[in-house]
Amino acid sequence: MSIALIVHGGAGTWRPGSDADALAGIRRAVKAGRDILERQGSALDAACAAAVVLEDESVFNAGTGAVLNFDGFVEFDACVMTSHDKGIGAVSGLQRVQNPILVARQVMEMTDHVMLTGDGATRFARVMGHPDYDPVTPARLADWQDKKQKLAFGIGRDPQASMKIRAFLQSHPEYAGGTIGAVALDAQGHLCAATSTGGVTMKLVGRVGDTPLPGCGTYASIDAAVSATGTGEYVVRSFAGREIADRVARGVALDTAMNAVLDQMQADFNADVGFIALDRHGRTVAAHRTAHMPHGWFRNDGLTEARMQA
Amino acid sequence: MSIALIVHGGAGTWRPGSDADALAGIRRAVKAGRDILERQGSALDAACAAAVVLEDESVFNAGTGAVLNFDGFVEFDACVMTSHDKGIGAVSGLQRVQNPILVARQVMEMTDHVMLTGDGATRFARVMGHPDYDPVTPARLADWQDKKQKLAFGIGRDPQASMKIRAFLQSHPEYAGGTIGAVALDAQGHLCAATSTGGVTMKLVGRVGDTPLPGCGTYASIDAAVSATGTGEYVVRSFAGREIADRVARGVALDTAMNAVLDQMQADFNADVGFIALDRHGRTVAAHRTAHMPHGWFRNDGLTEARMQA
Repeated sequence: MSIALIVHGGAGTWRPGSDADALAGIRRAVKAGRDILERQGSALDAACAAAVVLEDESVFNAGTGAVLNFDGFVEFDACVMTSHDKGIGAVSGLQRVQNPILVARQVMEMTDHVMLTGDGATRFARVMGHPDYDPVTPARLADWQDKKQKLAFGIGRDPQASMKIRAFLQSHPEYAGGTIGAVALDAQGHLCAATSTGGVTMKLVGRVGDTPLPGCGTYASIDAAVSATGTGEYVVRSFAGREIADRVARGVALDTAMNAVLDQMQADFNADVGFIALDRHGRTVAAHRTAHMPHGWFRNDGLTEARMQA
Repeated sequence: MSIALIVHGGAGTWRPGSDADALAGIRRAVKAGRDILERQGSALDAACAAAVVLEDESVFNAGTGAVLNFDGFVEFDACVMTSHDKGIGAVSGLQRVQNPILVARQVMEMTDHVMLTGDGATRFARVMGHPDYDPVTPARLADWQDKKQKLAFGIGRDPQASMKIRAFLQSHPEYAGGTIGAVALDAQGHLCAATSTGGVTMKLVGRVGDTPLPGCGTYASIDAAVSATGTGEYVVRSFAGREIADRVARGVALDTAMNAVLDQMQADFNADVGFIALDRHGRTVAAHRTAHMPHGWFRNDGLTEARMQA
């Protein structure tokens, strides 16, 4: 059987000079997952290990270094999904833990629920042994303070605040570090997808994107596993993860399927998104409609790569 | 063009004698939606109006009379989705409003997000003008107190609490009022699905079920609109809403598609679930694998019906 892994660090536009940190993180994540797969470990273990490396690397928008919401704190979304047993674990609005992907995995393995949200998710994390952890980095805090100062209205009073925030952000283009994700195929032929994020900069408190929604930002079937990145609302409205896997199930090649979905999303929404995916034969594909999407992969033909663009 | 509407009040086992209240609520909901459709109103308006009637009827597990979580308070999940413009609005972990479905609709119409959760969702509801509202009924409170007394462990200390709660509930079979949902087809050929719930009795704080997850408990495509009810985790792991609509898109009749998905879910999970759905020709279908699922419909051939079982 093939084993394989592919990871991403978010579709977007990366600040000149941040490539080195991003690619170093990507390489470490690929190695972490590869080591597990080569020791006959599970796709679930490999995808989670790679995701943890990326969460812990502060250049990405997940775990340590995640972006702040409108009120200046971090709310995490994360999801893990396994192909063979239809396993799903997800968290949304989770706060103050180091590794949200591990909490999502515990929702799958330790409860009969598939998703926990908000304060309940944070409380569950504490019961599972995750200590209180501050994920805010000085760089993210400075960025938030700068934006907050430039935004001239209060969210508490304006019902259309989120649309105005988006217009403001579009007129102030910026470095946007990304969501992270990992998909893996193990020697037993099982696929796993894992995605973790702080969401969009200056999001309304409580905003949930595509990452924790199974079938949207994270998906694993017996045919393919997918992790998405970019403006999540478009990914949700396109059911992108499942849409790609469904095409593969109907016999379409993985790269053709991914590009067809990206084309449709560009036609529908001019969507600034990207994907990584892996099929059951161990073929890895990455594609995006943004300037950059740091990603890297390992296949059992020995090829290992890390790139800023597909 | 056809117009049509179908509503449900939850798959489950209804307490003998509660039929009359349930069916009266179903009839009022069908009438509220029908009135709007017959005046050339939108599927979105009709589905939301029907859902509001069901949320306000305390016999159902949504809005007033929703079930309490393990800690004894109500957390709402709701979602609305429209076919023609891929519109989605959802809330999870929302507290203390009278009509969660209207907050979900406002997420769709008044923000550029698709889902808000937890405290952020509740705060958004207040900004949108929903006053503080206590949805707890004496019957639900008494039921919660009774269960809490019988449960001999504390959730704060037990990592596998949710599985033990489920085992307890299975050994103490009970009346289970259900999630509510409405799907509508308007004279313009647009479909809309709306679903609202308090979730499962004694759920972990923060548990999110299928209801607010687009493609799972709530789904609308140009081919069909679906609202699900029953144990939500199975609906999520089966992507049931989208699975039904996708089969219709491939030319399968709506009732055949729904029963195929129910059969698959029974094989995979022995799932205690039910669905209502409507296709673009105005055909309505209801099916369930539980003792009861109060539901009712209106089609423009004039037929109006309300039943406890399909």
